[in-house]
Amino acid sequence: QVGRVCLLYSGGLDTSVMLKWIQDEYEAEVVALTINLGQPGEDYDVVREKALRLGAVDARVIDAREEFARDFIVPAIKANAIYGLNYPLFTALGRPLIAKIAVEIARETGCDTIAHGCTGKGNDQVRIDGTVATLAPELKIIAPVRDWKMGRDEEIAYAREHNIPVKGGTETAPYSIDDNLWGRSSEGRWIEELDHAPDDDVFQLVTRPEEAPDEAEVVTIGFEAGVPVSVNGQAMDIVSLIETVAELGMKHGVGIVDHIEDRIVGLKVRDIYEVPAAAILLPAHAELERLVGTIHQNRFKPGIDQQWAYLVYAGLWWEPLRSDLDAYIDEVNRFVTGTIGMKLYKGMARVVTRESPNAVYDAQLATFSESGGLFSQQASPGFIELWSLQSRLAWRLRNEDRG
Amino acid sequence: QVGRVCLLYSGGLDTSVMLKWIQDEYEAEVVALTINLGQPGEDYDVVREKALRLGAVDARVIDAREEFARDFIVPAIKANAIYGLNYPLFTALGRPLIAKIAVEIARETGCDTIAHGCTGKGNDQVRIDGTVATLAPELKIIAPVRDWKMGRDEEIAYAREHNIPVKGGTETAPYSIDDNLWGRSSEGRWIEELDHAPDDDVFQLVTRPEEAPDEAEVVTIGFEAGVPVSVNGQAMDIVSLIETVAELGMKHGVGIVDHIEDRIVGLKVRDIYEVPAAAILLPAHAELERLVGTIHQNRFKPGIDQQWAYLVYAGLWWEPLRSDLDAYIDEVNRFVTGTIGMKLYKGMARVVTRESPNAVYDAQLATFSESGGLFSQQASPGFIELWSLQSRLAWRLRNEDRG
Amino acid sequence: QVGRVCLLYSGGLDTSVMLKWIQDEYEAEVVALTINLGQPGEDYDVVREKALRLGAVDARVIDAREEFARDFIVPAIKANAIYGLNYPLFTALGRPLIAKIAVEIARETGCDTIAHGCTGKGNDQVRIDGTVATLAPELKIIAPVRDWKMGRDEEIAYAREHNIPVKGGTETAPYSIDDNLWGRSSEGRWIEELDHAPDDDVFQLVTRPEEAPDEAEVVTIGFEAGVPVSVNGQAMDIVSLIETVAELGMKHGVGIVDHIEDRIVGLKVRDIYEVPAAAILLPAHAELERLVGTIHQNRFKPGIDQQWAYLVYAGLWWEPLRSDLDAYIDEVNRFVTGTIGMKLYKGMARVVTRESPNAVYDAQLATFSESGGLFSQQASPGFIELWSLQSRLAWRLRNEDRG
Amino acid sequence: QVGRVCLLYSGGLDTSVMLKWIQDEYEAEVVALTINLGQPGEDYDVVREKALRLGAVDARVIDAREEFARDFIVPAIKANAIYGLNYPLFTALGRPLIAKIAVEIARETGCDTIAHGCTGKGNDQVRIDGTVATLAPELKIIAPVRDWKMGRDEEIAYAREHNIPVKGGTETAPYSIDDNLWGRSSEGRWIEELDHAPDDDVFQLVTRPEEAPDEAEVVTIGFEAGVPVSVNGQAMDIVSLIETVAELGMKHGVGIVDHIEDRIVGLKVRDIYEVPAAAILLPAHAELERLVGTIHQNRFKPGIDQQWAYLVYAGLWWEPLRSDLDAYIDEVNRFVTGTIGMKLYKGMARVVTRESPNAVYDAQLATFSESGGLFSQQASPGFIELWSLQSRLAWRLRNEDRG
Repeated sequence: QVGRVCLLYSGGLDTSVMLKWIQDEYEAEVVALTINLGQPGEDYDVVREKALRLGAVDARVIDAREEFARDFIVPAIKANAIYGLNYPLFTALGRPLIAKIAVEIARETGCDTIAHGCTGKGNDQVRIDGTVATLAPELKIIAPVRDWKMGRDEEIAYAREHNIPVKGGTETAPYSIDDNLWGRSSEGRWIEELDHAPDDDVFQLVTRPEEAPDEAEVVTIGFEAGVPVSVNGQAMDIVSLIETVAELGMKHGVGIVDHIEDRIVGLKVRDIYEVPAAAILLPAHAELERLVGTIHQNRFKPGIDQQWAYLVYAGLWWEPLRSDLDAYIDEVNRFVTGTIGMKLYKGMARVVTRESPNAVYDAQLATFSESGGLFSQQASPGFIELWSLQSRLAWRLRNEDRG
Repeated sequence: QVGRVCLLYSGGLDTSVMLKWIQDEYEAEVVALTINLGQPGEDYDVVREKALRLGAVDARVIDAREEFARDFIVPAIKANAIYGLNYPLFTALGRPLIAKIAVEIARETGCDTIAHGCTGKGNDQVRIDGTVATLAPELKIIAPVRDWKMGRDEEIAYAREHNIPVKGGTETAPYSIDDNLWGRSSEGRWIEELDHAPDDDVFQLVTRPEEAPDEAEVVTIGFEAGVPVSVNGQAMDIVSLIETVAELGMKHGVGIVDHIEDRIVGLKVRDIYEVPAAAILLPAHAELERLVGTIHQNRFKPGIDQQWAYLVYAGLWWEPLRSDLDAYIDEVNRFVTGTIGMKLYKGMARVVTRESPNAVYDAQLATFSESGGLFSQQASPGFIELWSLQSRLAWRLRNEDRG
Repeated sequence: QVGRVCLLYSGGLDTSVMLKWIQDEYEAEVVALTINLGQPGEDYDVVREKALRLGAVDARVIDAREEFARDFIVPAIKANAIYGLNYPLFTALGRPLIAKIAVEIARETGCDTIAHGCTGKGNDQVRIDGTVATLAPELKIIAPVRDWKMGRDEEIAYAREHNIPVKGGTETAPYSIDDNLWGRSSEGRWIEELDHAPDDDVFQLVTRPEEAPDEAEVVTIGFEAGVPVSVNGQAMDIVSLIETVAELGMKHGVGIVDHIEDRIVGLKVRDIYEVPAAAILLPAHAELERLVGTIHQNRFKPGIDQQWAYLVYAGLWWEPLRSDLDAYIDEVNRFVTGTIGMKLYKGMARVVTRESPNAVYDAQLATFSESGGLFSQQASPGFIELWSLQSRLAWRLRNEDRG
Repeated sequence: QVGRVCLLYSGGLDTSVMLKWIQDEYEAEVVALTINLGQPGEDYDVVREKALRLGAVDARVIDAREEFARDFIVPAIKANAIYGLNYPLFTALGRPLIAKIAVEIARETGCDTIAHGCTGKGNDQVRIDGTVATLAPELKIIAPVRDWKMGRDEEIAYAREHNIPVKGGTETAPYSIDDNLWGRSSEGRWIEELDHAPDDDVFQLVTRPEEAPDEAEVVTIGFEAGVPVSVNGQAMDIVSLIETVAELGMKHGVGIVDHIEDRIVGLKVRDIYEVPAAAILLPAHAELERLVGTIHQNRFKPGIDQQWAYLVYAGLWWEPLRSDLDAYIDEVNRFVTGTIGMKLYKGMARVVTRESPNAVYDAQLATFSESGGLFSQQASPGFIELWSLQSRLAWRLRNEDRG
């Protein structure tokens, strides 16, 4: 019942085996689709040719970096988007875009089915299947890894049998990698042993802090309405800006994350992330946002941001609650304009300067010397009296004899 | 109307001037009270003698380190207590204890008044006045800095006139410092200029990362029911443990915080914090807590923790909501038992290993190879279908023609 | 230092005494300002004449009903705004508008001071003083009740002495009343005794349920984008609509509230409210909003709404967090279009019908008979397996022997 | 692969057909299990005999009313447990207990499988399957309705063929009913039409308000530590108390709910509920809880309660987050002691009196006359100044020219 299949094709072993297997198993034509979200070092011509060589009737490469940065990463920056303790959601942000483009290409190329390489234990199937079912319920979805019984050894055997090139040695399984403009993840091997400290070979993006320059470097990020627009005073389009900041972070060993995560399908996993751009831009944005926000805004927004990150992580990009949250987040960010200086040094990124025309900060108020204007020290006793009134009354009721 | 005054006495310029001034202004006897919460490097004998020399009728030094660690810092660890982006609340945690002890000593020494050196623009007056008014509403409170018109120059003139020793040169005002076992804050001078990156001379506790050892060090922290109980496998009482961890952090440049903060009295200020113990123990605890918690627990606790930190910051230590939150937090922490390895290197502290008998982690589930038991990959399509159902339905209603 | 005073004048005893007293005490001219927010049964000509007779140099009456309904009540409806268990915030919504108009009139009439009749124990001083200090920090504020020592008896004596008419008998103090288009509150007398069930004479707006019609009546409210726009199919401007719905509620005994409330200044009070329009429009709106919202939206909005109500109650109408919340709330309400039927009967208002083009409801899905399309029953076991996975794993870890 | 089956047996058509069908389909012995959670008017002897007549090898009836009330309803009262706008969760509370007892009886009677009558579209399968999989992962679960293709007509045909008695006429499908001590739900027929106001015949428990007594009645509920312990001053065990209060509510038409609900499996449904006891006990508890709580407690608890209700609704009774929430809730309820008077009249239940030794209410503070002690009106201006400080500063930054 499968006609023509649009396969999300990365060029790696899994999806190469799949490309062949779908043709055999379903007797279906395959359109290979590769999407450029800024994976560092990828050669898309090679990927495209490999797809055609493996029998794809068509092989498309779509450069979606700008859309990814503008419509997915920027909202994440405005939302200070972190899932769990430290995951900046790069894969989670990429999946709904990948699936949306797959729907577009499938329709354009007359496919009735979308195929992807997600396993049945991860979040990505939720994000991709959910997007396809939302945007194009008429399309079928096949996810061979979820169904077939091949482990890595069977995959390699199948690859050899069908003349599919297998990169590198085959003795040890490689890490399982996913990456784009906003970060890179590694899973598998010793990463699954929680008490195994990271081996150095996992870090392919970020310099090990021990090997980073001995000189610290301060980089300033300019924001307008919550969007990063300049680096060290130089205006840049958003893709270039993220790439430039990532370069700086990589150089200084910034953005290494060793993370335990609660997957939406109910299990915990460990991931090693390298997020050199996010580790600089997210704290810079958060600092500026707090500077222009009142105490009430600053206490309330973390709950909004946490929910935004959860929805995106959970594959609910198209859920209307996200639009509601975005409306709130955009309103806050209207005033998030200014410049933040970040000091980078051997794995560390720390805010050291900040400046904004909207800062709710009055140096005269904040100073130790007597101030006039908006604040009088004489107001404090009255404030304290009413501020603590009910707590005091309750404490006495609960702690003193009433005899 | 002031009889005898219990003065919270640090030995510094402000409270020394105060000690004298209260005797003159109110014709009142003064009992000087100095509380040891683990201020690094303080010589309490010197402080005590200075108080007596300035006319105190009695001068008490109370070692409250153990009570502070056990009843204030440990609950803060269990609550992952951070206010704003990065403040581990050390001063905020100390104030209610200081004020509680002041009440005890005031009653013991027949004082009818408690005096403190807080200004009218800070949080500490809220915490101290609030505590005294809660525990001993019959006591009066005087806060000379709130009332008098002395700036630093007048203080120094007053000190000279009354033979009060003034430490160091007098040309430039020093930073305004507060410290205890859990951290150290600096305010004043260039810190009030938000775009001024930290000058090196402000760091008196933590080694500058650039001067920290070139070799990284991994320290393991053992927890039982949320309480840190061992360092590198060696059991320690809580005060020693915090001191030991602080030493390690100081050595490796860990725990520097440059922070903009929303004070409870309505203004924003910048503080430089040095929190070498907190910067290691808090992330270690948070990591372990997430490891033993379910996704539901892990999503919900941050809101609890944020509220706990806010109450403590806001001087509402005695508010019954804190007890309610503590009940929740203690229940979570019953299972927070295990060991976390932290890598320390030139200003950075990062989790690298974790181990717990209660980890909601099943390596077999998490692995890439096919797993049995609690998880079947075949369950995923059904999950995804129902998980995304309403969002899909809503999206279609909102985005498609209904013609 | 007071030049010319703009007095918020209601025509009642307190502000009449004040009108005279300000002239005497400050030797200042008084401009009386009376604002029509839809107080039922008020004769503004009488109020105006009384002000002039008592010496006001000018007496203005401003009809602000439309602005009140459009800019204050409608946002409250969209926010399902309830403070505590049951207070629909009518007074809290009116105060910032009253103070804003006072600022405008003060500027227009050359006043340098605004005077109001709020006590020092209530919320209204926070709302009015806060608004004036925000919009016009150059204006002074006087609140005679906060300062003077007059009780009711002294007020009456003062009134007699100065020929100020005193309504009704003077033996028993009347209830303290505040009202506008959105409701009416009573305080004082037996209301302060929490175990005293309401005496009938307090209800001057809503028919006692026992005396309401024996026949129930169903009223349908039409909403567009969250705004009520029609009653029983008849389009109405918002002021007329609220008045019409209030009439129906009053007739059927709907909207009686007996409420204990946590004032922002730290004390608890009891109020008797009569809110016939709110008791119909708020549940109608809430029902429709839930019908067009997904489970995610419906779980999240109550926290948004609670915060909105708190800010408004707490006198923080001008706080930017309110704008952030409004952006969220408006986004949700874009789709809140449809019709709700409410059954009114002897004190009760209950939703009985609902209809919306945006309902996330599919009768075919919801029915017991087998359904196709978006839902397959076969999906459930997979959903349940993953949905409960972590909870099960955690439960076993915590409850079973690990021997 | 099914050996012996423990069937949750209600005596109705569905589970009677199932009892027979399981014997035929699986060639398995069936143990029928019927659990008394206080379903009004049920004759358990008749149910038991019917089961045996239909071939059950054993038929057990377990009276679990006390456990249900004590361990499920009482925590729900303490949590003010409402899901959505108005559902007091009676079915959701009963399911985990039913499944827990099923596990016990299955083990006791040597069954390897539990069977239940839940459909694949409802919440109950999540609650029951989730409980069984948590407590007894070794047990299999069969849910024939999820699998078979029988509609109501096929069921009746099957019943006739196998001599299973069919209650009442068979032309029109009856409402689908579930009930226990805490309430009764109806689904099906016109209820699925959202714009169809309730037909009278659906109400089998609560008197129609129009037919309720013309005289109002005040009932007082006494609470100790959050638990209702007396009615009108008379102490009662919890089961009797709930039954007594339910009687009063039924008599006065109290507790009719017409509800749209977001099921956990992703669809919306309408239910008609009759909850006479909950409609009195829940608001009484909420009122008392607010009376003894501070403003901080009262603002925070609704978020806790909402989460508790969600977990229970979502079939996550055994999730450790519920224990965490319970610890919080129990701490709050330690002080929820006192008496609440509720007025019942023609469908309405309204708080009219309250009394508690722990009330954070001081009549002297709350009164209009000048008060001493904990409150001075002079404190207010200072409070207002600091309370509004940041909002004012932000407003000016955002709304005024900076020229």
